[in-house]
Amino acid sequence: MSFRDHINSCNSFDPARVVPLTAGNARLGLLRRDNADVLRRFRDVFAVGEQGVELVAGGSVDAISRTVDGVVDALVAEHRVPKWRNETFAVAPRWEMPPVFRLDRGAVPFFGTRAYGVHLNGYHRRGDGLFLWIGRRSPDKQVAPDKLDNLVAGGIGNGHGVDETLVKESEEEASIPVSLIKHAVPAGAVSYRMETQLGIRDDVLFVYDLETPSDFVPKNRDGEIVKFELIPADEVLDRIRTTSDFKFNVNLVILDFAVRHGLLRPGDPEYLEVATGLHRPLD
Amino acid sequence: MSFRDHINSCNSFDPARVVPLTAGNARLGLLRRDNADVLRRFRDVFAVGEQGVELVAGGSVDAISRTVDGVVDALVAEHRVPKWRNETFAVAPRWEMPPVFRLDRGAVPFFGTRAYGVHLNGYHRRGDGLFLWIGRRSPDKQVAPDKLDNLVAGGIGNGHGVDETLVKESEEEASIPVSLIKHAVPAGAVSYRMETQLGIRDDVLFVYDLETPSDFVPKNRDGEIVKFELIPADEVLDRIRTTSDFKFNVNLVILDFAVRHGLLRPGDPEYLEVATGLHRPLD
Repeated sequence: MSFRDHINSCNSFDPARVVPLTAGNARLGLLRRDNADVLRRFRDVFAVGEQGVELVAGGSVDAISRTVDGVVDALVAEHRVPKWRNETFAVAPRWEMPPVFRLDRGAVPFFGTRAYGVHLNGYHRRGDGLFLWIGRRSPDKQVAPDKLDNLVAGGIGNGHGVDETLVKESEEEASIPVSLIKHAVPAGAVSYRMETQLGIRDDVLFVYDLETPSDFVPKNRDGEIVKFELIPADEVLDRIRTTSDFKFNVNLVILDFAVRHGLLRPGDPEYLEVATGLHRPLD
Repeated sequence: MSFRDHINSCNSFDPARVVPLTAGNARLGLLRRDNADVLRRFRDVFAVGEQGVELVAGGSVDAISRTVDGVVDALVAEHRVPKWRNETFAVAPRWEMPPVFRLDRGAVPFFGTRAYGVHLNGYHRRGDGLFLWIGRRSPDKQVAPDKLDNLVAGGIGNGHGVDETLVKESEEEASIPVSLIKHAVPAGAVSYRMETQLGIRDDVLFVYDLETPSDFVPKNRDGEIVKFELIPADEVLDRIRTTSDFKFNVNLVILDFAVRHGLLRPGDPEYLEVATGLHRPLD
């Protein structure tokens, strides 16, 4: 296990195994070929060719979303999509563009549409160094149960903003009041593209840092995190380098924090791979 | 002009226009096809094929370096390489590997071997905000004369370390004493690959930040910078967005600083392109 391994496993994407999901000239997603084949029978919704899958369902955003929902129903029944998450993500060619349709979060990897999240590095400085707030995910989580996590992390649902999601998730996941979270500093984005059992995760994570005061103790409210701990940054990095204790993408978010704050230094043999491996250019 | 334009111009690389320079299984550089053709007559040094150029000169690092120097002499005489810089860069498959040979800095773009540099963002916080130290390059510089620059920047010569280069360049370019530069914080790397008139620049810049005290005023000693100014960060970003006043790669280094320090925020329409466009993964 090494830093490199975590970066590689979040970038296990082979272009030869996928075809684009398009709407006109715009690419909306990346379908693994086996998933694309499954869509052949939904002729009113998708036109499946050798080189790609075209969304042919028309109408308003609501109408297309309802039509695609019908397909997702069938995929859930066949266990190709794990289950309805009842939370929708916007599907658009790019972040700043209006959605073409809304898609249940559970079906996002099947279609390989880009998903956006917010991750908050909570840290505390003391005389004896820099510490990171680390959460342990509930054993009931569908994705990465029991794994270690950032202080706060969440997906950006359809129609919600980045700051808005940060404030909401900080309140629900760690009881961080608005008076504190407003001091969080945006510090970039971590991006990666990986193949999973379900399809393709094409993820962009907006990253924030929050220095927490001495009297702050996070407290989970939504049951998604069972425990928070303040761990010395060096210990966190050692653990990332030598184990898979952290959720796959949280390794990358913390490595980005470590690089930006000089916790990982040019003398480290993996420094350049880390510094250049966390920000997949968007296409 | 936009942030995106600066990122794009530093990534104006078209794989179809180059062939690899190899030594055995390792890639050492990227030769534009016209440059590769020029090497055909140096049969004892390079084997030029349709798919690549193989270094065939053998012997010790010193011996190969001398042999390649002979080729560089001829290229300089033909004005294909601008002139000898009398400063050599190490040529190796990867940063952490020992050099295969040393190459005069002036010939680096011709062969498209990876070059490493150090850039220092000097900044100062006052009640009225964050300011950046900006230098103006001498009109006599071979590359980017008269353009605006970071507080300190320099290439990493063969045999020199990252920290060592930072300390040396900080002294020469801005009279920063060791007692101050030791507080510089490494903050990652900016990487890009671009085609220029001379060939391919495949650059990796180690980035450092230094917060300067109120009584610090930089003073150039080596004649490479004619003037330093402390400019409000917002003004610097406006100028990057709307002009080409800064040296091509300095735009990227300052954008990286802006993203890491929350000066550029997720609401900016170019935020994600900037946050994911400054760190070309190494290959």
